[in-house]
Amino acid sequence: MTTVEPAAAVRLDPAELHASLRDPALLSMNFLNEVANRFPDAISFAPGRPCEDTFDLADLHRYLDAYAAYLTDTKGYDRTRVHRELFQYGRTKGIVHELIARQLAVDEGITVDPEAVLVTVGAQEALWLVLRALRASDRDVLLAVAPTYVGLTGAARLLDFPVRPVGEGTDGVDPDDLLAVVAAARAEGLRPRALYLVPDFSNPSGLSMTVRGRHRLLEIAAEQDLLLLEDNPYGFFQAVEGERPPTLKALDTGQRVVYLGSLAKTCFPGARVGFAVADQRVAGPDGGLLADELSKAKSMVTVNTPAVSQALVGGMLLEHEGSLLRANQRQIGVYRRNLDCLLRGLGARLGGLDGVRWNTPAGGFFVGLTVPFPVTDALLDIAANEHGVLFTPMRHFHDSDAAAHQMRLSCSYLTTEQIETGLDRLAEVITARL
Amino acid sequence: MTTVEPAAAVRLDPAELHASLRDPALLSMNFLNEVANRFPDAISFAPGRPCEDTFDLADLHRYLDAYAAYLTDTKGYDRTRVHRELFQYGRTKGIVHELIARQLAVDEGITVDPEAVLVTVGAQEALWLVLRALRASDRDVLLAVAPTYVGLTGAARLLDFPVRPVGEGTDGVDPDDLLAVVAAARAEGLRPRALYLVPDFSNPSGLSMTVRGRHRLLEIAAEQDLLLLEDNPYGFFQAVEGERPPTLKALDTGQRVVYLGSLAKTCFPGARVGFAVADQRVAGPDGGLLADELSKAKSMVTVNTPAVSQALVGGMLLEHEGSLLRANQRQIGVYRRNLDCLLRGLGARLGGLDGVRWNTPAGGFFVGLTVPFPVTDALLDIAANEHGVLFTPMRHFHDSDAAAHQMRLSCSYLTTEQIETGLDRLAEVITARL
Repeated sequence: MTTVEPAAAVRLDPAELHASLRDPALLSMNFLNEVANRFPDAISFAPGRPCEDTFDLADLHRYLDAYAAYLTDTKGYDRTRVHRELFQYGRTKGIVHELIARQLAVDEGITVDPEAVLVTVGAQEALWLVLRALRASDRDVLLAVAPTYVGLTGAARLLDFPVRPVGEGTDGVDPDDLLAVVAAARAEGLRPRALYLVPDFSNPSGLSMTVRGRHRLLEIAAEQDLLLLEDNPYGFFQAVEGERPPTLKALDTGQRVVYLGSLAKTCFPGARVGFAVADQRVAGPDGGLLADELSKAKSMVTVNTPAVSQALVGGMLLEHEGSLLRANQRQIGVYRRNLDCLLRGLGARLGGLDGVRWNTPAGGFFVGLTVPFPVTDALLDIAANEHGVLFTPMRHFHDSDAAAHQMRLSCSYLTTEQIETGLDRLAEVITARL
Repeated sequence: MTTVEPAAAVRLDPAELHASLRDPALLSMNFLNEVANRFPDAISFAPGRPCEDTFDLADLHRYLDAYAAYLTDTKGYDRTRVHRELFQYGRTKGIVHELIARQLAVDEGITVDPEAVLVTVGAQEALWLVLRALRASDRDVLLAVAPTYVGLTGAARLLDFPVRPVGEGTDGVDPDDLLAVVAAARAEGLRPRALYLVPDFSNPSGLSMTVRGRHRLLEIAAEQDLLLLEDNPYGFFQAVEGERPPTLKALDTGQRVVYLGSLAKTCFPGARVGFAVADQRVAGPDGGLLADELSKAKSMVTVNTPAVSQALVGGMLLEHEGSLLRANQRQIGVYRRNLDCLLRGLGARLGGLDGVRWNTPAGGFFVGLTVPFPVTDALLDIAANEHGVLFTPMRHFHDSDAAAHQMRLSCSYLTTEQIETGLDRLAEVITARL
């Protein structure tokens, strides 16, 4: 037997790793996580987490049993097959696709073939897979309503997929700017593939599209041969009771919309279950669905979404007769109360101050606050360190001048007491700088 | 409100989707899954699945409680924090990293900082993330011992990362061929970044490296400035009792080895938990580990590995005092019995037939069988349809002439009765063609 001399330790050159790993979008995510970890006792308006007081370990046991019972009673599986479904490698497109298709019909009026539903490791994987499929050559560009969820920007960076911003306007997407951005890209010989947007209670701005705007956007998509990537994690969470506007997918008669669904906020993030509805037909002898193309890529990234995660959200769906809207009645009340508390608290503390203003979203998790001084990472560090309060500098989502003076405030997982105390601290940070 | 005319349905052109989706590697995976689904009652020597008779729903409940108790009793978490750990978004690098580091120390003699362990959605995600990091420019190429696990080839295709085959020789890697392939790539102005291999009971060939060969490979890696991507899903499953050879990572004094771990075979595939040990230092002011760079990319693909999946494998680890080798004693016995049954059965039915031969692996899930006629997908279809038996044509892993006449036989999840019946059917297929 030969022996090896203790070798000199490898030292990798960051310039020899993929450029995305040095990209601001990926560094943002790490910076924001790191700040939150360094100040665990600060009151944090930063993360878009669901509220926590409904979590109960007993639920996981019950969901698991409910799903196993469904496999036995409804699907007619024997014991061996039930165990195979939960423990073995599984179907690449997932095992709760039928339950998800039913939920979309019940809660959203979206009618879709379960075969067009691809279950993924969170909506993030669904998003990444769609981008992978659409980035076929160096000519392809993606459009995204700005400010943009950092997870879209980061996923695109991993694929060297350029993202061009489209203005948000007053209605969630500025149609004239969209047409101008498409025309400009084509004039450069590029191929705009799709527009990414969050039509309901957008992250980070909180804006929602009107129904009229949704119809207009679908028209433009058809005229301009674009796909729409509709990301909808917050649609249930309206601030006031009333009819919810239809999703783009519910209005989509020409399969222009790839719908990206997250169960993180409506079930729980620890399951990491999301999905894509990709019912677009792909031409050719196989003639499959886009969902099938995405599943080929998925088989080489995560193989399949964990069966146990799917079983848990499946059990939760079954327990609420297939409706997540029904399952979330209590949470919807919490988010309403919190958003109201945040908006009233901002008014009480910062109302009428020169250069300080905020929007009043009709729901969701986020409020955008504008101040008359730059909102930097350094300021966040001071706020955390000296005042015990965290927020997200908007520049992490956007690099316009407007964003430089904005912060995103999230109130979804705080108590009203924490919101009040957090706002007291935030007001200290702000008034000291006016 | 305007109305949209029912729009013409989108029809996507496959040529406008990423080329990987038309690649043989990705089509192979789909073809093989599809055949298995079409013939659910055939006896299948195809999939590398773990045996199923140890699966029990009650275990999942117990593992979950064991992990929750560990959080309370060992980590000292209160009820809120336990629930947050299981239900909320979590640490990108995972939550069972300490348990995995302990398992590697106990079972493999690998000493590693838990911070260098990145928990992933199966070893496949770990592999993909490493490839993403290493493919920094068009000059980068990857080397892989051929025949190669199709999941490596497919992951590389998603990243347009060229893979150059290196001969297996008689010892798992042919060192002369490795040096020749590296030199040839460099002569073309390319940069070979890493060699991918399965040193123990390789998929698909079943070969294992000698200890001497492992030392020699580490020397070459240091001399040639290559990383080694060591994939080790089958290391526990020796055919005969005795000392297992050390992993490359256990011998790695210079951080040349990125170790890819799968818990699919040693816990269960339905959790989809794997990991990378990436303790390489990255130069620069941040001076982090490669694991931290990989986690940046992970945050944009899957955000984090499902907490509930991690909790289940964590509970299983805790139940066996941190040792998966201990947890797998029964399974190791099953695989020994099955491999022995398969090899004896081949001898009894096909021994001495002209042009029919097979290897005798020292463990693992796979045997390579060579026949004197081409092993095509069409033959597989006939075998499935007319004889009720499935196998994997080796050409899916390799496109040499040798592979054209080979099939991979897996016996890991069959009973001995199924193996005997399956071999009767396979012998019919083969003898009819001699």
